[in-house]
Amino acid sequence: MRVQVAIIGGGPAGLLLGHLLSQASVDNIVLEQRSREYVLGRIRAGVLEQGTVDLLTSAGLARRLHKQGLVHGGVELCFDGSRHRIDLHGLTGKNVTVYGQTEVTHDLMDARDALGASIVYEAANVSVHGFDGASPRVRYEKNGQTHEVECDFIAGCDGYHGVSRASVPEASLRTYERVYPFGWLGLMADVPPVSHELIYSNHERGFALCSMRSPTRSRYYVQCSLSDKVENWSDERFWDELRRRLDTRAAETMITGPSIEKSIAPLRSFVAEPMRFGRLFLAGDAAHIVPPTGAKGLNLAVSDVRLLSRALIEYFKEGSAVGIDTYSERCLRHVWKAVRFSWWMTSLLHKFPDTGEFGQKVQHAELEYLVGSVAASTSLAENYVGLPS
Amino acid sequence: MRVQVAIIGGGPAGLLLGHLLSQASVDNIVLEQRSREYVLGRIRAGVLEQGTVDLLTSAGLARRLHKQGLVHGGVELCFDGSRHRIDLHGLTGKNVTVYGQTEVTHDLMDARDALGASIVYEAANVSVHGFDGASPRVRYEKNGQTHEVECDFIAGCDGYHGVSRASVPEASLRTYERVYPFGWLGLMADVPPVSHELIYSNHERGFALCSMRSPTRSRYYVQCSLSDKVENWSDERFWDELRRRLDTRAAETMITGPSIEKSIAPLRSFVAEPMRFGRLFLAGDAAHIVPPTGAKGLNLAVSDVRLLSRALIEYFKEGSAVGIDTYSERCLRHVWKAVRFSWWMTSLLHKFPDTGEFGQKVQHAELEYLVGSVAASTSLAENYVGLPS
Repeated sequence: MRVQVAIIGGGPAGLLLGHLLSQASVDNIVLEQRSREYVLGRIRAGVLEQGTVDLLTSAGLARRLHKQGLVHGGVELCFDGSRHRIDLHGLTGKNVTVYGQTEVTHDLMDARDALGASIVYEAANVSVHGFDGASPRVRYEKNGQTHEVECDFIAGCDGYHGVSRASVPEASLRTYERVYPFGWLGLMADVPPVSHELIYSNHERGFALCSMRSPTRSRYYVQCSLSDKVENWSDERFWDELRRRLDTRAAETMITGPSIEKSIAPLRSFVAEPMRFGRLFLAGDAAHIVPPTGAKGLNLAVSDVRLLSRALIEYFKEGSAVGIDTYSERCLRHVWKAVRFSWWMTSLLHKFPDTGEFGQKVQHAELEYLVGSVAASTSLAENYVGLPS
Repeated sequence: MRVQVAIIGGGPAGLLLGHLLSQASVDNIVLEQRSREYVLGRIRAGVLEQGTVDLLTSAGLARRLHKQGLVHGGVELCFDGSRHRIDLHGLTGKNVTVYGQTEVTHDLMDARDALGASIVYEAANVSVHGFDGASPRVRYEKNGQTHEVECDFIAGCDGYHGVSRASVPEASLRTYERVYPFGWLGLMADVPPVSHELIYSNHERGFALCSMRSPTRSRYYVQCSLSDKVENWSDERFWDELRRRLDTRAAETMITGPSIEKSIAPLRSFVAEPMRFGRLFLAGDAAHIVPPTGAKGLNLAVSDVRLLSRALIEYFKEGSAVGIDTYSERCLRHVWKAVRFSWWMTSLLHKFPDTGEFGQKVQHAELEYLVGSVAASTSLAENYVGLPS
């Protein structure tokens, strides 16, 4: 089999890249090691930058998003028992949209089906070859048979643990990492959200976040220890802890209910450089991970894919290699700004075991300054809605 | 002897407080353990916020300042071999003024002489008593004799190592501290400054700062190890190191010359809370220390003294205790914002041994974002010229 672009990974990055390439008649294949159901069962991010919504809209992928997505013009910061609204729209002219990553993936799968383009699910033992030469190949096994795909380019959209980055010779790769000394315990429940906008709370007991997926489905988080276990957290204990970390009004009006999902995730910042190795490109989590505090993970993947799709289309349609030659550098400039913002927002809002009382007082001074200064609020807002890439 | 206010410390905080009180006919004494010449020989900060200049002007203390001070409408950030100007005046409508702390002290001494108010120099073994009751007293020795001053209030303006804070019972005091893992090696020379505005440089070899005291006197700094010694730094080595940490144009046009002073200072953030204990008030370095990166030390002392002088005048002239009762809280709110800013600017610009390559990349991303975003530049600028207190 031969395609122009072999895409490893059938999550939102890979599917979006496949869609944009197919629309431009660049033929491609998407290889996903899991099943369709497994991919759709993963619970991930839920906040889309306006640039992400714009791209999905212009690609014809946003019909359901515009019907069901919740447009938010602000977020709230909670500390010292009070909430302070950051007027995202007033400060930047832009909004964010709450629409689950699962839903985006669903829409992308439907769109790919509609185009008649294929996704190979349960592609086992995927391996990438020859990307440092002119004829890269991807091999995989399916139903006991080995398949080989010849291609011009390989796009590694297979996440942090994927085979793409792992196949790059170590000497060609520089990695940067920060592991945070805590995790997020998340709970999903079919109850109305406590507030119609997100609440980010800095509390002496630890960070908390009130988010949602829809007007009837809430997504809540509390900062927890890395050694903690989900089994230690009954729904009741979770709701009690969440309420203690919020202002009185939120605590009193919060509607609770049985969890439909509960899990602990670690927080990590990670960047691999460069994002291109010969004819292999990395995009999304395969190249970089951010802590979820700034809601940047999916949006960064989309901005990578925007640049990569344009670069590949330019190459095949106009014969220009400018886009692919500048892909890594252009992505990384934007990536590092989002990594910086996610690190900053994480540092501002969590309780750190190692910064002591000085660190806590500085956090508090920064929060007070932030909500009182138009310049500082605008800086947060312009990062939150997404800097231009 | 009896006065209304006994002021411990004859640096700029104590002298300014004495002047403002004397102007309002609140009688006071200033006790200084060093000689006048020693106090004037100390080399300290050199950048005054507009609010500081305004206060000195309205108190009639700024004639020489307005003649000799250098008004700066911007500062420059240097990284990656290029300089980027932050337009302080364009972004905030305010300026800063370069005028050495030594000069401010000089003007204050002259003003006190003109008012005929006295400063007791070389007051030895100063001790404070009874400030938790109605009749505080200050004792000191001079020329072998012990003196006692009865007063209504004691103002501790005697710096980080002074007796005032040290006399507060430990249980009444909370302190917050951050010690930075590096120092500043400073050099003063009678050569024209390399640029007419300050240059703050983030370089892989470490931070550097190009400052000045006048059009013919430069003040330069390079980040150094805490274990370093001045004896290890010939003038030539200093100039070489400084040039390596600047952009090519600055390095090539810099005029060097023999040092007239060279010293290493550690960097520290420190805050003591509260700033009032009965009839004892702390102001300036006696209550808080900031690293010099944001040029906030002297300005914070002035904003403390502004509040304290008003509070005491209100008390004696209008019989209202509101000012003295809210002094600590009002000061600290402002102090913590400046402590936050000084910590942030220090974190942004220095090379930290412990944050690794991830930390360096985040610094770099923040610098790039900062100079490219009006909101972020404005945030830096409004802190640099001074937030309202």
